[in-house]
Amino acid sequence: MMEYTFSNRISALQPSAIREILKFTSDPTVISFAAGNPAAESFPIDAIREIAADILQNRPVEALQYSVTEGYTPLRTQLKARLHEKYAIGRDFDELLITTGAQQCMDLATKVLCNEGDTVICEDPSFIGSLNAFRSYGVRLKGVPLQEDGMDLDALEAALKTEKNVRFLYVIPNFQNPMGVCTSFEKRRAIYELARRYDALIVEDNPYGDLRFSGEDIPAIKTLDEDGRVIYCGSFSKILSAGMRLAYVSAPSPVIAKMTVAKQVSDVHTNIFFQLLTDEYLRRYDLDAHIAAIRKIYAHKAKLMLDAIDAHFAPGVTHTTPQGGLFLWCTLPDGVDMPQFCRTAVENKVAVVPGTAFLCDESGSSQSFRMNYSTPSDDAILRGVEILGGLTRQL
Amino acid sequence: MMEYTFSNRISALQPSAIREILKFTSDPTVISFAAGNPAAESFPIDAIREIAADILQNRPVEALQYSVTEGYTPLRTQLKARLHEKYAIGRDFDELLITTGAQQCMDLATKVLCNEGDTVICEDPSFIGSLNAFRSYGVRLKGVPLQEDGMDLDALEAALKTEKNVRFLYVIPNFQNPMGVCTSFEKRRAIYELARRYDALIVEDNPYGDLRFSGEDIPAIKTLDEDGRVIYCGSFSKILSAGMRLAYVSAPSPVIAKMTVAKQVSDVHTNIFFQLLTDEYLRRYDLDAHIAAIRKIYAHKAKLMLDAIDAHFAPGVTHTTPQGGLFLWCTLPDGVDMPQFCRTAVENKVAVVPGTAFLCDESGSSQSFRMNYSTPSDDAILRGVEILGGLTRQL
Repeated sequence: MMEYTFSNRISALQPSAIREILKFTSDPTVISFAAGNPAAESFPIDAIREIAADILQNRPVEALQYSVTEGYTPLRTQLKARLHEKYAIGRDFDELLITTGAQQCMDLATKVLCNEGDTVICEDPSFIGSLNAFRSYGVRLKGVPLQEDGMDLDALEAALKTEKNVRFLYVIPNFQNPMGVCTSFEKRRAIYELARRYDALIVEDNPYGDLRFSGEDIPAIKTLDEDGRVIYCGSFSKILSAGMRLAYVSAPSPVIAKMTVAKQVSDVHTNIFFQLLTDEYLRRYDLDAHIAAIRKIYAHKAKLMLDAIDAHFAPGVTHTTPQGGLFLWCTLPDGVDMPQFCRTAVENKVAVVPGTAFLCDESGSSQSFRMNYSTPSDDAILRGVEILGGLTRQL
Repeated sequence: MMEYTFSNRISALQPSAIREILKFTSDPTVISFAAGNPAAESFPIDAIREIAADILQNRPVEALQYSVTEGYTPLRTQLKARLHEKYAIGRDFDELLITTGAQQCMDLATKVLCNEGDTVICEDPSFIGSLNAFRSYGVRLKGVPLQEDGMDLDALEAALKTEKNVRFLYVIPNFQNPMGVCTSFEKRRAIYELARRYDALIVEDNPYGDLRFSGEDIPAIKTLDEDGRVIYCGSFSKILSAGMRLAYVSAPSPVIAKMTVAKQVSDVHTNIFFQLLTDEYLRRYDLDAHIAAIRKIYAHKAKLMLDAIDAHFAPGVTHTTPQGGLFLWCTLPDGVDMPQFCRTAVENKVAVVPGTAFLCDESGSSQSFRMNYSTPSDDAILRGVEILGGLTRQL
């Protein structure tokens, strides 16, 4: 056998720590709060079945043949209109590209914007899939502590002042993964102004924005984008289907042009059948009514988990109280060995994700762990939190 | 508006020249020999419709939920068995990864194997989608002239001797795009031995291998792979559906492990609905009988085009005679201005792709152009070749 040498950018990249945790969860006796799957009941299965049958009956060749890299034009047109009318997103200088999930948006944005050794500023902790996408291009990550209302602005300005070759800030303003918190409107404005002052772009990742179940919607940073520095990414993964891999990015057209060239050499185009299907769904059904139904599911599941945590967890364990999304974030008292707690939890048949998995500095330490309430059943939520609560009381 | 700066690797990358040609072909009065689409009648539409309905009826959540990066396990198992039994591909050290089209295989292989400035040796001319994937990682391309029976072996050895940091050879051994020729078994063996002697890997791209309509099948280079240096890529784009974006790669497991990590940060996983669908297709239907039917379609279309060329083209214009695949390659006499010929052809409502689009050296010159016979109708083939023939006689 030959010896293999891999590229520098990939040699250091580890498989996601969450994947390692998820291995335990193939054991059906383990209650998993470790995943990030949308609830099975959030998929509009009957509608998808009906539209799929129609497409394969009436225009099968269009659905099975090669298509264009930019995405299916009628879907792009509908999405632009929806973003503009419902969210005040998109100006004359913006264009829209369909991507193979929001993950591909992170991949393409990094590929077209960053040279090796450039810096991306991230909320710390942040979504590991994005952090690893950035790392896979040899980018340096600079973490800025995430507070309950968004990034620590002083730390952000210090980072912008001192870091070299900062290409963009990566922000998940709504129901952030992993912390479940929202960036306040004031901080969104401040982040935009800081990016402008230090001439950085912003990648605004908004997979969960539609999933608010309490409080008021907050306008996206992209709504403030007067000078074309925000790359806004939305997704159908949490509202129609995660497995179809369909998302989109609204950004200034010179950026979209380069991302389109990069997408062409990455996967040519996004699955066209599901682009047609999503386009039809938006025409025939009321997406907002469907989203309202999903919000109810998650409002219920979040309340169930939060109430159970308050009933069972030791008082020294704190947690965030999400107003939407899929996750909450628990923090153990200082001095407690968090990784050991997570290992003990798995031994007791409950899986959570250690907070270290989400750090910009992979060698950093954390007192926190992430819990997901969208995937487990109601019964699993109650039983799992009770088990975890017992463990917190033994600390 | 802000000023945008893009990464070095992407700044130089141009949109595919074919895309520019294809713009003309949106004019319905233009006969296009410029595309590379499989024939619409090659998709098993009834079978796909039946299986799609079944899946959305009986296991919709599995088809719409997140899935694993490696690909759907039963499909991977079936593909490994099929590759082994039918093509003698895959040894104990090999693994298989499902990719979002073969294009993604090129993207991932380059990302995990090549640092910027490394060299990839390619057949010259070669498939522009792959060449641009390599270029998008800042890789240097070294072209080796492609002859009617495969790469010029002397030029290949000279390149392996003199080029620095050669990471892999990129080869399309069957019905090569754009030339339509096959690498002989003797040359496949010689290429493998040269790669071994100079310790390079081989990326063997085989999207057209099943589409042979005359002559004898030739074993893949991967069948010779005793020491684990061949990354073999197959695709369903030309036999089930191009738009679903489903392909696979068989390679030594350390390489697959790194490609899997890279895929995870690129698009998480390939569309799972179409993975389930393809898995079911392989169980319920006879793929080989379907492939036999596609071969008949292309045998007919290729013969139609070749006979028309022989009847209408000026004698000084030479062409390859493909035994399979989608393309043939015409070469104009020395002294003729090939780009001007292609422009005149489009003005006369026939689109072909100038050979310069497929060169490793983008500033190189060519006397050739590519013609596709899988996409146009029989009538379009006859009319288009007659028009081109008239133009060749005016040279």
